[in-house]
Amino acid sequence: MAASASASLRHHLLLRRRPRFPLSPSPSCTFRASSLPRRYQRLFASASSSSTVEDGDPLSPVEPSDSASVVDVNPPRGTRDFPPEDMRLRTWLFDQFREVSRIMAFEEVDFPVLESEALFIRKAGEEITQQLYNFEDKGGRRVVLRPEITPSLARLVIKQGKSVSLPLKWFTIGQCWRYERMTRGRRREHYQWNMDIFGMPKVRAESELLQAIILLFERLGITSSVVGIRVSSRKVLQAVLNMYSIPEHLFTEVCVIVDKLGKLTREEIEKELITTGLSSEAVQGIIEVLSLKSLPKLEEVLGSNVEAVADLKKLFSFAEQYGYADWICFDASVVRGLAYYTGIVFEAFDREGKLRAICGGGRYDRLLSTFGSEDIPACGFGFGDAVIVELLKEKCLVPDLSRQIDDIVFPLDEELEGPASSVASSLRRKGRSVDLVEDKRLKWVFKHAERINAGRLILVGKSEWERGMVRVKILSTREEFEVKAGELQ
Amino acid sequence: MAASASASLRHHLLLRRRPRFPLSPSPSCTFRASSLPRRYQRLFASASSSSTVEDGDPLSPVEPSDSASVVDVNPPRGTRDFPPEDMRLRTWLFDQFREVSRIMAFEEVDFPVLESEALFIRKAGEEITQQLYNFEDKGGRRVVLRPEITPSLARLVIKQGKSVSLPLKWFTIGQCWRYERMTRGRRREHYQWNMDIFGMPKVRAESELLQAIILLFERLGITSSVVGIRVSSRKVLQAVLNMYSIPEHLFTEVCVIVDKLGKLTREEIEKELITTGLSSEAVQGIIEVLSLKSLPKLEEVLGSNVEAVADLKKLFSFAEQYGYADWICFDASVVRGLAYYTGIVFEAFDREGKLRAICGGGRYDRLLSTFGSEDIPACGFGFGDAVIVELLKEKCLVPDLSRQIDDIVFPLDEELEGPASSVASSLRRKGRSVDLVEDKRLKWVFKHAERINAGRLILVGKSEWERGMVRVKILSTREEFEVKAGELQ
Repeated sequence: MAASASASLRHHLLLRRRPRFPLSPSPSCTFRASSLPRRYQRLFASASSSSTVEDGDPLSPVEPSDSASVVDVNPPRGTRDFPPEDMRLRTWLFDQFREVSRIMAFEEVDFPVLESEALFIRKAGEEITQQLYNFEDKGGRRVVLRPEITPSLARLVIKQGKSVSLPLKWFTIGQCWRYERMTRGRRREHYQWNMDIFGMPKVRAESELLQAIILLFERLGITSSVVGIRVSSRKVLQAVLNMYSIPEHLFTEVCVIVDKLGKLTREEIEKELITTGLSSEAVQGIIEVLSLKSLPKLEEVLGSNVEAVADLKKLFSFAEQYGYADWICFDASVVRGLAYYTGIVFEAFDREGKLRAICGGGRYDRLLSTFGSEDIPACGFGFGDAVIVELLKEKCLVPDLSRQIDDIVFPLDEELEGPASSVASSLRRKGRSVDLVEDKRLKWVFKHAERINAGRLILVGKSEWERGMVRVKILSTREEFEVKAGELQ
Repeated sequence: MAASASASLRHHLLLRRRPRFPLSPSPSCTFRASSLPRRYQRLFASASSSSTVEDGDPLSPVEPSDSASVVDVNPPRGTRDFPPEDMRLRTWLFDQFREVSRIMAFEEVDFPVLESEALFIRKAGEEITQQLYNFEDKGGRRVVLRPEITPSLARLVIKQGKSVSLPLKWFTIGQCWRYERMTRGRRREHYQWNMDIFGMPKVRAESELLQAIILLFERLGITSSVVGIRVSSRKVLQAVLNMYSIPEHLFTEVCVIVDKLGKLTREEIEKELITTGLSSEAVQGIIEVLSLKSLPKLEEVLGSNVEAVADLKKLFSFAEQYGYADWICFDASVVRGLAYYTGIVFEAFDREGKLRAICGGGRYDRLLSTFGSEDIPACGFGFGDAVIVELLKEKCLVPDLSRQIDDIVFPLDEELEGPASSVASSLRRKGRSVDLVEDKRLKWVFKHAERINAGRLILVGKSEWERGMVRVKILSTREEFEVKAGELQ
């Protein structure tokens, strides 16, 4: 038996590490990451590698590096590494995103994480454009680590132009970035699943997107008693603005302001709205309509000839037919923070009200013209990887995602390393996952087999090999027998 | 039948487009992308959206934008979009990477695409560090869109420290970036599959990596008559330097210079070596040894006590046992361009010699100490997504990757949109992929069904629905029948 040649890494920790600050979940989230199994905590902390004071803040100058030769072992502030256990959780979640997208007959697309800044320059005061991770490249071009994916989708739709017929149903899963100079320990990147439909003017498109979101929740084991989807339409606000003869060009700005309801106080919102030039009468009208949570009441206030009401009634009628009516509710306060939404908007939330929005989306029929193209009706949603995982953990809905290996092949002697190679190689050619282990004690191998949930242990020993045999141990049953090496399946 | 509500995109092309320059493959690649099916050309062009003159070049000032409101529909210069057909090819390739990694019992990990510049600052004059896509973030930190993934892997190994036992077998697939101010139309990003083993000092590690690469080729339908893997060891060069008593600190620099053999002339290489301070005798010795292509000859020149010879002999003996000896050959000229390799190095190449290296890797036992940690023996490889796809296309080895959908559900009347929703919804809950189509003519639907390889067409018609039935058409056999809506499987 060969002696153990490699030790654990415990002696290799000579590097400076950032002090471990207590995890600080975002204010709206009362979920306690520290109660999780240790291996999942990393995914939850809103910024596992962030201190509570942000770099770039004048109060906290960048720390001087200890020595030129010592590298910080953490990823850049506000970003995540995915060691194997975190990666398995991410892969499982993304597989669910992909499977629902397949069921809904959407096609996958992708874009560079680096985009031209011009795609994201909008003047409505959105948080997303105020926190752009932008910079100048060496050729003097303004570029950005994308904060969202919709503008890239729209860009590709325009570019594909002639070669595709509408409607297009596309999905993508990608990393998005932001740069905040804030003291909160928030992350600078997250992954987002996007589904978008181009060329479908009716609320059928929104109904399809809602089904996708609900199919996902159902696959994850989440029920409509845990999560709901609030739905409204920006046309509600549009109708109110029309009632008060407020000029068209103020629409987007008003949307971005009223989206802050819940984050800012009512007084602050009113003040911001007055600043845009609205009368206090109009402001009161807006605030009142936004408090509505009943569609008949909305119809009473706006009249039934208003598009907003017709769209919403159609959507709720579809919801009955799809069979997901218990998931959705009308809530006029939903406006969403992106400037480009024009119609139905929606967001999924946990009914306990502990977490931020789980996902959000809506119709954006006029985005393409802001890029200089002719408009195409469009709608879509973005579904991040952070809040959903918080919820899954809280509800104990993350499945067992342990490592699993078919076979471990272990030569009992150094001179059997060659034969072990050929045994491992032949099993691998059959598609089995094989961990070839050497230079360890048998005790270590058994512990290892347990750790990685190996199905079989295949021992290559001298006397057996001389007879063309190997020893097989089925680890679940502890059954043990000899097999001809050439007949191993 | 509802009238067609949405037209093709052909009228939306009002945007400025970059002129289409002829595709310019890299000098070592005589493969002509223009002979490919049109839908795959995009993946091959080394820079499909690049003009032949690079931005930032003083001779070509950045073009003024035509108008503030017109956005360039191309992704940033040197980067790619992945529309559905390109994405299917990428997903297929990455699935092969993942499947081989699973078979080899490697665990997947991932890292931020944005890393601290400090991880990549090396002084050996490597091309990779001269072309860093680096910049300063808003907090004044030097960051980089990573040019390669190995330093991130090493960083995470150090960070994980106590919690893992060696050896670690990790793989990752991620995007890597470079910034060149050059006139060649090269890409600025590519995806790379990395497999790395930490904590395995013997050439077993290299043998395992080679098996992974060869398993991949075999899965892709590539044989050893099409592709080979050249293997050598940096210890060969080390032995030569020792023969001429050349100081240790010149080793890395010499490696990086001699890696340019083939790109620069022999005279240029000799001149560069002389500049580092080597005697012309030593330079001749190096050049002579690098020309060796036979292991017995190498043993003759260096002696059999040299580690390089022992390692290589062991590796070739393993190759026999694994059953892949016909894939690999000794070639002393292989050095690889990364500064940190210390032992065995290898690269896969097309035997016709048309393409750049398909993948490359080697042992890097001293990387961790450059980060201030204790060293752990390590080796790995990077396998890009560009050259392999060129090769697969040239050999007609890309499988049919058309879109495939189980069912199309089509209401024959607008008032049947509700029932169609419930039919589609119930099929989707069974896991079938369903495209719900509306507002099209039946003729369009049949064409669409062909285009997306639909299995069945499910027509929701008024008279059938009144009887609780739907009409089903199996598209491959043209068989047609009625089924109770509730019994549709």
